[in-house]
Amino acid sequence: MGLEMNGQGEEEQTAFEIAVVIPKRNVKERDEECDCVEVLVDEFRKVGLIIDRVIGLHDEFIKLAAPLETLGRAAAKLQIKKRTHIGMDLQFEWDECEAFVRQPDGSLFSWCERFHCYHHIIYGIVNNSKSVITLNSDGKEFHWELRESLLRKLESVGIVKRVFPLHDEIKRKHLLRNWALNYKDLTKQPIDEIYSYFGTKIATYFAFLGMYTQWMFFPAVFGLTLQLIDFGSLQLLVLPIFFISMVSWAVLFFQFWKRKNSALLTRWQISYSVGADSGYKFLDMNRSSFQSPVELIKKWGNDKTKGKEIFQREEWFGRLTRFRNDAIVAFGIICLQLPFELAYAHLYEEVGSDLMKFGLTVAYLFAIQYFTKIGGKLSVSLIKYENNENTEYKANSLIYKVFGLYFMQSYIGVFYHALLHRNFKTLRQVLLQRLIVSEVLENLVENSLPYLKYSYKKYRAVRNKRKCEKGSSTGKIQLTSRVEKEYLKPTYSASIGEELEDGLFDDFLELALQFGMIMMFACAFPLAFSFAALNNITEIRTDALKLLSIFKRPVPRAAATIGAWLNIFQFLIVMSICTNCALLVCLYDQEGKWKLEPGLAAILIMEHVLLLIKFVFSHIVPEEPAWVRANRMKNATQAQDMCSKRLLRSISGGKKLFGEIKKNK
Amino acid sequence: MGLEMNGQGEEEQTAFEIAVVIPKRNVKERDEECDCVEVLVDEFRKVGLIIDRVIGLHDEFIKLAAPLETLGRAAAKLQIKKRTHIGMDLQFEWDECEAFVRQPDGSLFSWCERFHCYHHIIYGIVNNSKSVITLNSDGKEFHWELRESLLRKLESVGIVKRVFPLHDEIKRKHLLRNWALNYKDLTKQPIDEIYSYFGTKIATYFAFLGMYTQWMFFPAVFGLTLQLIDFGSLQLLVLPIFFISMVSWAVLFFQFWKRKNSALLTRWQISYSVGADSGYKFLDMNRSSFQSPVELIKKWGNDKTKGKEIFQREEWFGRLTRFRNDAIVAFGIICLQLPFELAYAHLYEEVGSDLMKFGLTVAYLFAIQYFTKIGGKLSVSLIKYENNENTEYKANSLIYKVFGLYFMQSYIGVFYHALLHRNFKTLRQVLLQRLIVSEVLENLVENSLPYLKYSYKKYRAVRNKRKCEKGSSTGKIQLTSRVEKEYLKPTYSASIGEELEDGLFDDFLELALQFGMIMMFACAFPLAFSFAALNNITEIRTDALKLLSIFKRPVPRAAATIGAWLNIFQFLIVMSICTNCALLVCLYDQEGKWKLEPGLAAILIMEHVLLLIKFVFSHIVPEEPAWVRANRMKNATQAQDMCSKRLLRSISGGKKLFGEIKKNK
Repeated sequence: MGLEMNGQGEEEQTAFEIAVVIPKRNVKERDEECDCVEVLVDEFRKVGLIIDRVIGLHDEFIKLAAPLETLGRAAAKLQIKKRTHIGMDLQFEWDECEAFVRQPDGSLFSWCERFHCYHHIIYGIVNNSKSVITLNSDGKEFHWELRESLLRKLESVGIVKRVFPLHDEIKRKHLLRNWALNYKDLTKQPIDEIYSYFGTKIATYFAFLGMYTQWMFFPAVFGLTLQLIDFGSLQLLVLPIFFISMVSWAVLFFQFWKRKNSALLTRWQISYSVGADSGYKFLDMNRSSFQSPVELIKKWGNDKTKGKEIFQREEWFGRLTRFRNDAIVAFGIICLQLPFELAYAHLYEEVGSDLMKFGLTVAYLFAIQYFTKIGGKLSVSLIKYENNENTEYKANSLIYKVFGLYFMQSYIGVFYHALLHRNFKTLRQVLLQRLIVSEVLENLVENSLPYLKYSYKKYRAVRNKRKCEKGSSTGKIQLTSRVEKEYLKPTYSASIGEELEDGLFDDFLELALQFGMIMMFACAFPLAFSFAALNNITEIRTDALKLLSIFKRPVPRAAATIGAWLNIFQFLIVMSICTNCALLVCLYDQEGKWKLEPGLAAILIMEHVLLLIKFVFSHIVPEEPAWVRANRMKNATQAQDMCSKRLLRSISGGKKLFGEIKKNK
Repeated sequence: MGLEMNGQGEEEQTAFEIAVVIPKRNVKERDEECDCVEVLVDEFRKVGLIIDRVIGLHDEFIKLAAPLETLGRAAAKLQIKKRTHIGMDLQFEWDECEAFVRQPDGSLFSWCERFHCYHHIIYGIVNNSKSVITLNSDGKEFHWELRESLLRKLESVGIVKRVFPLHDEIKRKHLLRNWALNYKDLTKQPIDEIYSYFGTKIATYFAFLGMYTQWMFFPAVFGLTLQLIDFGSLQLLVLPIFFISMVSWAVLFFQFWKRKNSALLTRWQISYSVGADSGYKFLDMNRSSFQSPVELIKKWGNDKTKGKEIFQREEWFGRLTRFRNDAIVAFGIICLQLPFELAYAHLYEEVGSDLMKFGLTVAYLFAIQYFTKIGGKLSVSLIKYENNENTEYKANSLIYKVFGLYFMQSYIGVFYHALLHRNFKTLRQVLLQRLIVSEVLENLVENSLPYLKYSYKKYRAVRNKRKCEKGSSTGKIQLTSRVEKEYLKPTYSASIGEELEDGLFDDFLELALQFGMIMMFACAFPLAFSFAALNNITEIRTDALKLLSIFKRPVPRAAATIGAWLNIFQFLIVMSICTNCALLVCLYDQEGKWKLEPGLAAILIMEHVLLLIKFVFSHIVPEEPAWVRANRMKNATQAQDMCSKRLLRSISGGKKLFGEIKKNK
């Protein structure tokens, strides 16, 4: 809370959205023409950016803002596709900007598009003169080669320490008041505002979290009832009913989530195609990421059948690489991690004294931290060889691989207690422990650790400053510039590495592990749903608070679905059907005879029926609401009606040309 | 074979593609101006059709052909969308016909489009004069009302007996030679020629049948090996391996079929969108079938949120109706059909004498024929209340419902023998019986019955003629006109009713039942695959022969996928995993102890692993080849690049207009 109050004095009307950090230099005699920072600032001005330079304690900050026209021209150069008033997505043109639909908050570009344009503008400053320019900084000299990006050069020689997006103080405070600190709303959130401030991916996460928590109320109440009321002899009948309703609940929830997701996409005017593998394929704005197919298309132009062959080879090669990588990871998990986890679970069961148990657990926790990191790094390096179409596909590939690791880590011990030892007391203890202790702790840690880090950094900065300026000044030294404070804030990054995923990975992972925990052992511990519901209500606000006041503003991502996580949740539902049936068998077959009696057979049949239900339900509830589809169809016909005749004329006119080109080839 | 030789003398160069059948009348004094047939012929001429009138023995035939321009203008009026050279689908315009891509066989319109245009032309002849026209026929008078379709009027008063598409003799003979009688090619077929002669739906069926048969070779050889070689003690190990490879084979086959299907669609220049429920949604050419959403859109224009509500209500109401109907059918099948089938199976097992068995079977066969018909009619009448988007959706809905009936009918008895009585000998006998006897018999019946019918009709026509003209002429009376012969040929219609499905229903049903039979009892009778392979090789040619020489030319359908059957095949795969596991349990647990021993547990685990494999495989093999996708993307970008700027200008120009319209509303 204290964080955002300080900055109130320096509220700006111009929204500076990007900051470039440069270490403070000892510039005595300014050689204006050659000093690299001055050149950089000049170039920024030339491309139409508004600049505000702030001198901090240790670093200098160049804050950048862009007038709409600058952004618009960059967007046109980037060939960004935007929704027009006729509902068709067309390449942006600055002169025709009237034709494009505005964002829900009234601005022309979304935050994601703006960031993309900023990136293009500032990294697009190249040496366009005819000779190499010599720049100097603190006496050191270096050459700005022809066609070289200035910012990249400065980054490589260490003059630009960092480029990061800035918080918008007005919007941030507004969100803080209406969202992060508005506990009364329970699961209600201003999703559109979150979208315009953080971009699609984060808004999708919060929309998912909100809906998930809302839906969680039903099983929470059901679970609580089961815990409080003693059904006596009916207990054995109640549990299967609970289990069946939980599975139906989960399946329906994800179908309705898909509907909500496509409704959100329509509201945010994002085009997407519902993918073949029942996940949404987002359109990547970055055209260069489609490089490899585009190049192949060029090759293809010459020879059709040969092109097809190249494509097919390329496709299968890619698939096999991905399959091989997945196999390596799966092999690693099964052959290395599984024995380790089982050994720990077994030792924990065998060891007598509590002290030993505690020591074992500490050692284990250290070990898995280390293992997870190795696994994450291995996965990232494996994925580098996969030719996934764009970074979001790569991120998904990483998620699948790393989730495998976490899945084993989180559940194998629990399975061990549940199925092999049939120790339901330990099982419930473990579940309770995990749900309460680990989730509450995790929430605390994930919020306080970055804050502590930030405080320490701030403290060190001030102390260092004091040391340096011991002699010269005696006044109080404080961090006064907001931008410097933000620079010291930690980045919203994933625990498994920053390359492909941001902090959303950890947030989704937490949700998925929780979902797995409560679903897979639903029959053993129905109360878990209530704990999860409580946890998620707080999770919404703490995650919001974290994003708004503890971290740097995250870099916006283009993806607008929960991506790989959807498949992981679906997988967990299927797993939960199997594990719960196994649990029921254990519960009803306490003597351990493993005889296939009518009761057991009934459970087996129930398992199959539930699996059937899962797939039937998935088919009954359509993924896309009818009005979304009708809207899209309406748009498509409108667009076609508008351009059909004109296009036809130009095609039949150009056909002779086409023909000639073909003949020449 | 004899059928098509007769017509050789009257081979025509102009392709007459539609025939209108009118009963021969006793026209003595011709009142040319008012005779309805003359008026009809005149009107046909006026709209630009070429006419050939043939007098048959009992009827008169008006054969119609259309010059390209007539078709083109009709297509433009119908707003048919066609692929252009830039890869985008645009509304057809006759003046710009150069812009549109031609069919693989060089014609501008596909057979389906042509038929659609013919239909529009001949049923589009309305009374455009200012007064009601009085027509007469054989002395009877009737009124041709304003704006009334002449052909519909004539059909309603019984003057036009039938309108049917005509075979094209040249192409038919070419296909007969290269396809139906070309037994040497085994599974190879000239799919593109079939497509241009019969349209997409039938070509898709044959492409599927060909690929299915081709893939069938592998399991056929495997099954034969299993039958011929005695593995001794390894037998128990070989069966599960066989089973696992069969499931993998089936899953892979259907994934590759989807790829092939999308490749075919690309080759035939048919646009489609890969649907949310992993089936292809075809674009219906008939715009009127989209009526209800289009109307809703109009309503929607006024109030956005209200429109959304209407849509959602409409959507859920439709879903619930469909669900209710499915539930009714399922209930009927389980509560009425299942006991009946079980009773038959039980009686068959109990009854001692062979004679009684035979009598029972005959009674049963009669009963099920009757039941199936009732079920089919019930389903059709239920579907009428569903608001499915177009006729192909309705057809799919019917297929699901009727397949349920056939599924019970075909397999319940077999399950009874296999699982309850564990009578593997009877099981194998039943399977062999069904596979050989019923399939061979069915093939014979389905080919000879229509031929006999046709022969009888021909014979009767000649005899009647002879009776009538006993006095007047004494010469030999023969059917000489090809068109009259075609008229007497039976229609290619489904056994369950003509309304929603054509004969393809029966052909697909046969394939699906065969697939279920061989897959679900794979472990009990591996040789079945070999029989199925042999059967399918002959099936290709007999089906081709049937279509080319026994039936009238079928009305082309727009759908270009195997539709509901794909889901049915997928369902059968999942079923087969479960049933085979149950069979293996029966095989290994001959004593009937039902104890969950390690072996049994292994089978259970295998079942789960196989179910997993099914879904993993479905994800690994993409439904759409990369080159198809790249092609589509290339087309999309090309189109967008061409029209982007122009469109933008017109939008931003028109925006003020849009705004004003919105304000006025």
